[in-house]
Amino acid sequence: MNELALVDRLRLMKGVSGIGDDCAVFRPKSGEDLLLKTDQLIEGVHFPKTMRPETIGERALARALSDIAAAGGDPRCCLLALAVPRTKSERWILALFRGVLSLATKTGTVLVGGDVAHDDKVHCSVMVVGAVKRGKALTRSGASPGDYLYVSGKLGKPWDQKIEPRLVLGRKLSGKATACIDLSDGLSLDLHRLCKESRVAAQLDRVPMVRGSSLERALHGGEDYELLFTLPPRVKQLAGTIRIGTIVRGGAGTVWLEGKKLAPRGYDHFA
Amino acid sequence: MNELALVDRLRLMKGVSGIGDDCAVFRPKSGEDLLLKTDQLIEGVHFPKTMRPETIGERALARALSDIAAAGGDPRCCLLALAVPRTKSERWILALFRGVLSLATKTGTVLVGGDVAHDDKVHCSVMVVGAVKRGKALTRSGASPGDYLYVSGKLGKPWDQKIEPRLVLGRKLSGKATACIDLSDGLSLDLHRLCKESRVAAQLDRVPMVRGSSLERALHGGEDYELLFTLPPRVKQLAGTIRIGTIVRGGAGTVWLEGKKLAPRGYDHFA
Repeated sequence: MNELALVDRLRLMKGVSGIGDDCAVFRPKSGEDLLLKTDQLIEGVHFPKTMRPETIGERALARALSDIAAAGGDPRCCLLALAVPRTKSERWILALFRGVLSLATKTGTVLVGGDVAHDDKVHCSVMVVGAVKRGKALTRSGASPGDYLYVSGKLGKPWDQKIEPRLVLGRKLSGKATACIDLSDGLSLDLHRLCKESRVAAQLDRVPMVRGSSLERALHGGEDYELLFTLPPRVKQLAGTIRIGTIVRGGAGTVWLEGKKLAPRGYDHFA
Repeated sequence: MNELALVDRLRLMKGVSGIGDDCAVFRPKSGEDLLLKTDQLIEGVHFPKTMRPETIGERALARALSDIAAAGGDPRCCLLALAVPRTKSERWILALFRGVLSLATKTGTVLVGGDVAHDDKVHCSVMVVGAVKRGKALTRSGASPGDYLYVSGKLGKPWDQKIEPRLVLGRKLSGKATACIDLSDGLSLDLHRLCKESRVAAQLDRVPMVRGSSLERALHGGEDYELLFTLPPRVKQLAGTIRIGTIVRGGAGTVWLEGKKLAPRGYDHFA
């Protein structure tokens, strides 16, 4: 299957629109800011060689959508830059696209473009465009001492658990949360990042864990994809979320747990 | 150098803005459509292991900008998904970013985000957002029989020649050209694509070549990055462009040269 043939096949699939030109054309609505995110999924680095193509595709999109959720946005469209070994069949490649498209259609994201090439290993970069009311994008930098710290669910999930981007919660947080980040690299590192950007410290009171997790994994594991966010004390806790601590004054990025400084040991993909 | 340190270094560089959050925030202007393009550059596939990092970075962005030019747009911002081997030094990585940023600042493109990871080989995906007056994006699909066919320069350049995205010409063509594509995969394949999308055929009268090129390379070589476009006969030829043929009725995608059908043999990265 060459590129022309692949484009012809993809055009017939649900959730695909406007592919086959040099660029995709996207018409923004007035009064909205756009959110841009790119993320890559590499065989042997982010997933094992044996992972099903549907799962690779879904996971690649899910990770980027989790960042759109963390910014309080609505996903609109995505592009896929895909490299696959020559040994992969047409069926395998279309299955990967089906994985992307099943989550895309569920979340209102349209696949509008991409690029395909051959390489020794599977390499899947996704780029997502989201939208948010003008000026209402959530960032990492607005947390203040006294704000309460929350997560959207229990932590320490196994790395291969299905990712459910917290898009509904993210939209509810827009206009309410003072800071937000998605937990893609572990609580200790992502909370450090949020505190560093907000120039504050944090006091962790509890670490809610899924059944079977260790404290180590819940603190430093890198695949939870829950939202970590801060609300001023006057704002009511949202259903399904868990309060885990408080933002405090202190060295920018410092995290306290049981009277000790917690090192930002989460998963740095580039350490 | 870990990701936190890299982000801190990049923030100080000219042409970088807003990185370090989950998403980049982009505010579109009213009355504009956005152009979205992603493209990948892979070591051993698109460039040799020995290529200088500055050149890799510049080339990765240039290829995507060439597509923005083909749509008649103005580049606004870009994101970079980069995988590099652990053996690459901090200096090498920053040099690659300098290559991206030197072309970015020249063309008014702001680096607003990205992702970094380790892999066995260098893998560089660029995503560019451009803008064009609403409804004025050039496409491949508007050519009609009788239109004249032009290129923006001579063909058959060696593959490693510096890419000069034809952004100024692209903007001039917006509102004038009936179809446009950038020559990234060779005249024979890209003209076939343009004709196929426009449901027309083309008659090639001449193939202008750079010094030292063969007809083979000018027809089927894949690295010219000139614009190939069509204008109605009443529209005056633009300075610096070369008329090479005419759009004719016929099987969608058929290209005629010297009385014979020209096969679309250009470089298909996925053949």
